[in-house]
Amino acid sequence: MKVKVGIIGVTGYTGGELLRLLLNHPYVEIKKATSRSNAGNDVTLVHPHLEKEISLVEEDFEVASFLEGLDLVFLALPHGKSAPLVKEIYEKKVKVIDLGADFRLKDSNDYEFWYELKHACPELLPESVYGLPEIYKEEISKTQIVANPGCYPTSIILGLAPLLANKIIDTETIVIDSKSGVSGAGKTLTEITHYTHINENLLAYKVGNHRHIPEIEQELSLLVQSRVCVNFTPHLVPMNRGILSSIYVTPKVSITEKELADFYREFYQGCPFIRLRDKTRLPQTKWVQGSNYCDLAPVYDERTGRIIVFSAIDNLVKGASGQAIQNMNIMFGLEETAGLGIAGMYP
Amino acid sequence: MKVKVGIIGVTGYTGGELLRLLLNHPYVEIKKATSRSNAGNDVTLVHPHLEKEISLVEEDFEVASFLEGLDLVFLALPHGKSAPLVKEIYEKKVKVIDLGADFRLKDSNDYEFWYELKHACPELLPESVYGLPEIYKEEISKTQIVANPGCYPTSIILGLAPLLANKIIDTETIVIDSKSGVSGAGKTLTEITHYTHINENLLAYKVGNHRHIPEIEQELSLLVQSRVCVNFTPHLVPMNRGILSSIYVTPKVSITEKELADFYREFYQGCPFIRLRDKTRLPQTKWVQGSNYCDLAPVYDERTGRIIVFSAIDNLVKGASGQAIQNMNIMFGLEETAGLGIAGMYP
Amino acid sequence: MKVKVGIIGVTGYTGGELLRLLLNHPYVEIKKATSRSNAGNDVTLVHPHLEKEISLVEEDFEVASFLEGLDLVFLALPHGKSAPLVKEIYEKKVKVIDLGADFRLKDSNDYEFWYELKHACPELLPESVYGLPEIYKEEISKTQIVANPGCYPTSIILGLAPLLANKIIDTETIVIDSKSGVSGAGKTLTEITHYTHINENLLAYKVGNHRHIPEIEQELSLLVQSRVCVNFTPHLVPMNRGILSSIYVTPKVSITEKELADFYREFYQGCPFIRLRDKTRLPQTKWVQGSNYCDLAPVYDERTGRIIVFSAIDNLVKGASGQAIQNMNIMFGLEETAGLGIAGMYP
Amino acid sequence: MKVKVGIIGVTGYTGGELLRLLLNHPYVEIKKATSRSNAGNDVTLVHPHLEKEISLVEEDFEVASFLEGLDLVFLALPHGKSAPLVKEIYEKKVKVIDLGADFRLKDSNDYEFWYELKHACPELLPESVYGLPEIYKEEISKTQIVANPGCYPTSIILGLAPLLANKIIDTETIVIDSKSGVSGAGKTLTEITHYTHINENLLAYKVGNHRHIPEIEQELSLLVQSRVCVNFTPHLVPMNRGILSSIYVTPKVSITEKELADFYREFYQGCPFIRLRDKTRLPQTKWVQGSNYCDLAPVYDERTGRIIVFSAIDNLVKGASGQAIQNMNIMFGLEETAGLGIAGMYP
Repeated sequence: MKVKVGIIGVTGYTGGELLRLLLNHPYVEIKKATSRSNAGNDVTLVHPHLEKEISLVEEDFEVASFLEGLDLVFLALPHGKSAPLVKEIYEKKVKVIDLGADFRLKDSNDYEFWYELKHACPELLPESVYGLPEIYKEEISKTQIVANPGCYPTSIILGLAPLLANKIIDTETIVIDSKSGVSGAGKTLTEITHYTHINENLLAYKVGNHRHIPEIEQELSLLVQSRVCVNFTPHLVPMNRGILSSIYVTPKVSITEKELADFYREFYQGCPFIRLRDKTRLPQTKWVQGSNYCDLAPVYDERTGRIIVFSAIDNLVKGASGQAIQNMNIMFGLEETAGLGIAGMYP
Repeated sequence: MKVKVGIIGVTGYTGGELLRLLLNHPYVEIKKATSRSNAGNDVTLVHPHLEKEISLVEEDFEVASFLEGLDLVFLALPHGKSAPLVKEIYEKKVKVIDLGADFRLKDSNDYEFWYELKHACPELLPESVYGLPEIYKEEISKTQIVANPGCYPTSIILGLAPLLANKIIDTETIVIDSKSGVSGAGKTLTEITHYTHINENLLAYKVGNHRHIPEIEQELSLLVQSRVCVNFTPHLVPMNRGILSSIYVTPKVSITEKELADFYREFYQGCPFIRLRDKTRLPQTKWVQGSNYCDLAPVYDERTGRIIVFSAIDNLVKGASGQAIQNMNIMFGLEETAGLGIAGMYP
Repeated sequence: MKVKVGIIGVTGYTGGELLRLLLNHPYVEIKKATSRSNAGNDVTLVHPHLEKEISLVEEDFEVASFLEGLDLVFLALPHGKSAPLVKEIYEKKVKVIDLGADFRLKDSNDYEFWYELKHACPELLPESVYGLPEIYKEEISKTQIVANPGCYPTSIILGLAPLLANKIIDTETIVIDSKSGVSGAGKTLTEITHYTHINENLLAYKVGNHRHIPEIEQELSLLVQSRVCVNFTPHLVPMNRGILSSIYVTPKVSITEKELADFYREFYQGCPFIRLRDKTRLPQTKWVQGSNYCDLAPVYDERTGRIIVFSAIDNLVKGASGQAIQNMNIMFGLEETAGLGIAGMYP
Repeated sequence: MKVKVGIIGVTGYTGGELLRLLLNHPYVEIKKATSRSNAGNDVTLVHPHLEKEISLVEEDFEVASFLEGLDLVFLALPHGKSAPLVKEIYEKKVKVIDLGADFRLKDSNDYEFWYELKHACPELLPESVYGLPEIYKEEISKTQIVANPGCYPTSIILGLAPLLANKIIDTETIVIDSKSGVSGAGKTLTEITHYTHINENLLAYKVGNHRHIPEIEQELSLLVQSRVCVNFTPHLVPMNRGILSSIYVTPKVSITEKELADFYREFYQGCPFIRLRDKTRLPQTKWVQGSNYCDLAPVYDERTGRIIVFSAIDNLVKGASGQAIQNMNIMFGLEETAGLGIAGMYP
């Protein structure tokens, strides 16, 4: 028996990526897909690379009828659009994975502050689980609502978790310098993401006020059981896919690179999508391109006494749609790697 | 029962791409791999994107022992290196698909002229089949030796076959302007493929003397049953993957765009990897990125009376490793698309 | 005494490029600049790369007052917007160089057909000169209105002129395959020019109906004194700047590569911005990046009897603003190369 | 009277860039150029973009005769090659600007440690001046030997100097995350800089052991008059030119963004190549592409209390050849901006 899924908001990059990956999933049937901009047309009109792989006319969207016959719904919508839908889906007892931001922050005040929007169903926040399987696998397996993590937070939390869980670092020293390919900015046309502007260009943006900050701090705080405040600076890099986070922290204790590596190996034991590397083979975004891996390398700099962690993911896979499928697998008791055995594409 | 395969020359891009695709193949077991430069190491040392997907130590190469237990060998070697090996493999009754150039030209004199090398086993040329499944499916299913086509020829022959088979065009008018991503030039370091040189650059190369010319002309001639001579001009474009061939021809007969489309549809009936497009949706290399598709669009220009055919492939998939697997499937009676259901990657 | 110039429509890429180049011009003073979208602000607000090089607040635009004190106006406007302005400028006896399309076609019917717009002042068409200095230097020196050529036509006409002027080729055989960087599509946001779409992508567009076709055919026809009809196919290539046109023609007479080279050398004698190359050093767009050069190489393919001409320019310099300045120099009796001695930028 | 200059090691990117910029210099004559790999040929053989701009046959190199008639020599050589030459040039009383690393470190032990090479003429180290004009203008004007700074150090020292000189920050907190285009890695072919590898890729390298570290620390220490130790992590980004350094520091005193801006404005008063920006217009590498500017923006993050400074340069101009010319101007009493008035190229 296959899991019957629907995708709401299938037009964007994460929607397309869900299709690409689910098409290869042995235990899933893509039953329905919908989006405002492509209603009435086949999904391949907006995703021509999938022609001949799938044929699926997008429905005019009406929640109740859309849910009929579905086991799970993926939401790939802008923030603010998911919350009301999740409420309805939840009431219909259908499982839902929200790839947007509406259920990532546990505190609706934080949501209101950072997203400048009142949350539509704060009562469901405690019901939802932050969908980072390397940390919340157990909770994910039991929930009906998964809040799929943001791309930057995924790379960063996975990079820091072993250090925080083991209380190795001074949490006041965390500096995170992240670099992202342009697909992270989505399909919306902007001056910054116009080809001739961002090609052969490099810049920081939203310094100190990116909406992934509260999400990062919430999860790091939970790991270390105390309030963590970080510097997070995102940069835009002229490439399509990939995030590399370079994370600088000061240890509270004396530590060797070998011990560091051990902490990571232990923490991520049994995690199929974590690949540990080291300073002789630092993570490169191209090595995770198209795949669900997160490549990690903690490095200890003896000269300065700082630890530097490098974390690379494909922002559209482990940073979005791949992780959503990993969550789905866990929610339905499937093998965690099902449908995600697609190797990365190089070059 | 799985087909047991070995790969000789696994280090290069086509070797890596064979691994990536075969890992996803339901009826194949990758038993062995070897290469001069990585002997004794795991294949993931040169293909770090495949770490955790495969673990396979490369053997010190000795033909006889390498062949033991194998049903099929893929050769991904420079021209001149394959021929002697194919001879040995053939004698051991193992099937072989040569991704190199040694068996593509039927006439060993052509080979000697264009490759400036005496062919090591011209007696096997008649035994081998040119592995373009859309044309030679029947022959491929019966042969022991497949000569996997070149990347440019694949895009071009597929673009022109319906016109030639239907004797629609004046074969003296064929002008082919092909553009390729840089992976087509391989892993060998050269000044031209140094990042800072070819990035933000565009150039033609080997005008009138590229080694794919005799291969293109051989196959076009066979299709139309008369000697065809073409202008073929390859260009290097700053991107990793993809070939777009723009082919200009003059029809001998009056024709409409609708009739053109019909010829193509008919010719490629039952061909799972051909996608026909038209002038409202011209082929784009990104739409075939990572997949085995060839996207084709024949356009009729009323002003000038010329037909222009656009043909897009991923040079490493349909132009190399994907096509090799398609050939393997046919040789072993498997479903033609087995292991190739991986959708293209966008963006 | 310096030439006092104004720029109308300074916001776009060609406007910015006019500023960059004129700032380095020894005999020019940029007096005024204007654009609808940036009125009231300094030009460096839209051209931050020029900060500290120039400070010039854009005027609210009113033609009569704008013209005061100016010797020359550059127009960098969409087609249809220039014609009415040129009329007013002409009447005020100010010289004008239109970088748009409104005065390129001599026949207002052609304009109406291709641009789907009635020409606002067809009576001025005979007064204007097509601003390709390598062919019309004399006429440019005497006119008040210059129609600055399109980017593709510049590369193509310069590529073919020696062949046509010497009546060497069969004009029915001309096939032109042009490839352009993305800046040619301008600053307007579109799906095609969104970074994640066109990066790592390659496509043809406007096959058989690009608006540069009538301009190319008009000029080629004038050169050979008979009606010429061509296949022109533009392609978009993932890079910022540069056009490479690959032009395929059949000679009417027997010819050698040496003779070909001689025709080109003779035709372009005294032309400071033409650089002749050959098949051992084919034109590369990076070699003309940022400069006003057009690099040309005619190649004779003995196998097929065709001539292939490669022509490379920077679409924003020789294909637009650099050529406009070259025209200005000629109109004002300045050295043709004044302000254009800026060498290309490599890499 | 023009300054007569020679270039030793003209083949590389910095050599080509020296030519490009000096060709536009009103008070310089390029008399000689030489390199091992191109001896006997015209410089345009390795720099085809400069054809028609310069014609200069490279000499077989012999120091004494090369120096004849020269006022200044630029050295663009690998480390270790400059030192012995500088000695000879110094003795002949010719001025010299070394674009390599041999005279950047004041302490020959540091040199020996980091470059694993004994310095050939440590006695000249005190004679040489670190050529960062924004800090050492006076000293540069009087010296005979200028050690032209490294590209990363230029971006970093300029980014931090106002903070250090004003003793605003805790020097134990400095974390520097730098990102560079690929031309910084030079013309030498490597696997990392092979197009298909680094295109669509992103990585850190030489974590904690890049040879620019001692140079950065030496200069920062001098500014604050105490030993400074920093984390410096370079990253490679898929673009040709540009460095963006993101620098994270903790202030010792309470400070506002307005005060920060004032410190920078004051410190860089009279510095023609510094452009101060702010968080509403963060530095972008494209805005300095091809020009000698360093764009700086100090940002104060109230949430975390950290200062983040963004510093963007073109690594080949302000990071190498442009700065060398700026130094030359100062050494010869010319206007500091002479020959450097070339505006940046956008897009």
